[in-house]
Amino acid sequence: MKLLRYGPEGAEKPGVLDGAGRIRDLSGVVADISGPAIADLGWADRLEIESLPVVDDAPRLGACVAGTGKFICIGLNYADHAAESGLDVPPEPVIFMKATSAITGPNDNVIIPRGSVATDWEVELGVVIGKKAKYVDKAEALDHVAGYCVVNDVSERDFQARRSGQWTKGKSCDSFGPIGPWLVTRDEIANPQNLKMWLSVNGVTKQNGTTETMVYGVSYLVSYLSQFMTLHPGDIISTGTPPGVGLGFKPPQYLKPGDVIELGIEGLGTQKQTVIAD
Amino acid sequence: MKLLRYGPEGAEKPGVLDGAGRIRDLSGVVADISGPAIADLGWADRLEIESLPVVDDAPRLGACVAGTGKFICIGLNYADHAAESGLDVPPEPVIFMKATSAITGPNDNVIIPRGSVATDWEVELGVVIGKKAKYVDKAEALDHVAGYCVVNDVSERDFQARRSGQWTKGKSCDSFGPIGPWLVTRDEIANPQNLKMWLSVNGVTKQNGTTETMVYGVSYLVSYLSQFMTLHPGDIISTGTPPGVGLGFKPPQYLKPGDVIELGIEGLGTQKQTVIAD
Repeated sequence: MKLLRYGPEGAEKPGVLDGAGRIRDLSGVVADISGPAIADLGWADRLEIESLPVVDDAPRLGACVAGTGKFICIGLNYADHAAESGLDVPPEPVIFMKATSAITGPNDNVIIPRGSVATDWEVELGVVIGKKAKYVDKAEALDHVAGYCVVNDVSERDFQARRSGQWTKGKSCDSFGPIGPWLVTRDEIANPQNLKMWLSVNGVTKQNGTTETMVYGVSYLVSYLSQFMTLHPGDIISTGTPPGVGLGFKPPQYLKPGDVIELGIEGLGTQKQTVIAD
Repeated sequence: MKLLRYGPEGAEKPGVLDGAGRIRDLSGVVADISGPAIADLGWADRLEIESLPVVDDAPRLGACVAGTGKFICIGLNYADHAAESGLDVPPEPVIFMKATSAITGPNDNVIIPRGSVATDWEVELGVVIGKKAKYVDKAEALDHVAGYCVVNDVSERDFQARRSGQWTKGKSCDSFGPIGPWLVTRDEIANPQNLKMWLSVNGVTKQNGTTETMVYGVSYLVSYLSQFMTLHPGDIISTGTPPGVGLGFKPPQYLKPGDVIELGIEGLGTQKQTVIAD
């Protein structure tokens, strides 16, 4: 099932995609696509999609999940990307946080913050937690996943690496977390470690990878993170990016106003953002 | 005004301290002490505290603010603490995030996570955002502050420093963010850079400092952070710790089950936590 949120920013309604790719309104079924709704998807199993009201126009899409408490990112989780960054694959996952205030809709503008010299892109597989997870084994970890989505882990490399320590500074700017278009429920993704992913800027392919080359896979990450903190419904884990980020080019390539970023993951839909200055 | 939240975990009610130090129930005035309520404290200015219902028993206190979107911490923000950590004072503030799921009440147990070998304490001045802040000047920064609170930035040094990069891993464990007892509104704190602060373990003083020796002060930090991301009502900035953390002793001293931590900041009240194993 492809769950989504549509409408103006801050006033999104819940929706679901039907067999013909149209949005159906879920307002009569759940209040929002957020922690309480995805903690138990029993309502989704009973859903008769074709009987729901069709949303006729082509509304803005919001982030596919609301009320996210934690936006956890995994660093250097593709061996080739670590190499292009000039860093070793870490002996255990690197965790950092992105501010939840960075979350935006999948097709909203990406805003280059004032003072930025190195705003960059990163297509990533997002994992949306459905069931509270604490000290869970790898074998049970996927039971705690509601579904998957595309994330663009937009990053300011200068803020991240050269402005006094800790990556969160370059990861948390407003608009740096486009999420969606859909929260694709877990039953639709037979194997999260076998999904093609790609990203282009102005029509030129920059990233072209697959989740197959992830160092630490989804079930490992959910289990690993749950050893450190409780994962709650609606939390998002962004699992790292394959090679082809702007930083990795020689010389590096960074985003400028007017650029158009398009990205997607097999089965999870696509995003398209226009880059603007703040 | 000393705003607070009282009652069982997850079912806290809003309250306020009266002149005699008793809790008065604010349920009839505001839904909760959270972003929407503190974004405009007009209701607090009009409050007749002595006419509110007295809460007779001595209830548990919850975190003094609910619905926090970002729990931003500043690293190495006291010159002496940087020295005890063997690190230089950074040329600009070091930012990291604590998971909001780590937030607990001021007197709740501190839980040592499984696998921990180095759980440590840090008394810190917490700044609670009242008004949305983006690109604000230092001169106007305090206008965006609703008030202040005590924070214990509990930290697992092994997770933080030796478990593959980025401090958030050692800062985000459940129970690692006791907040309160009170959100003390800004009008009560004439100068946030002149507050005594202290922390003891089992009655032995470990930290004994003052916010006077903070490297980057509150107004600078609010302005600085707002250059990177929008600060929203209810966001908390924990501004760093003075010397005396367990890591700084030779040999280091870390928390063990049964230990009792007490900490406080002048004008902001005190916290008391018992340490337990998970």
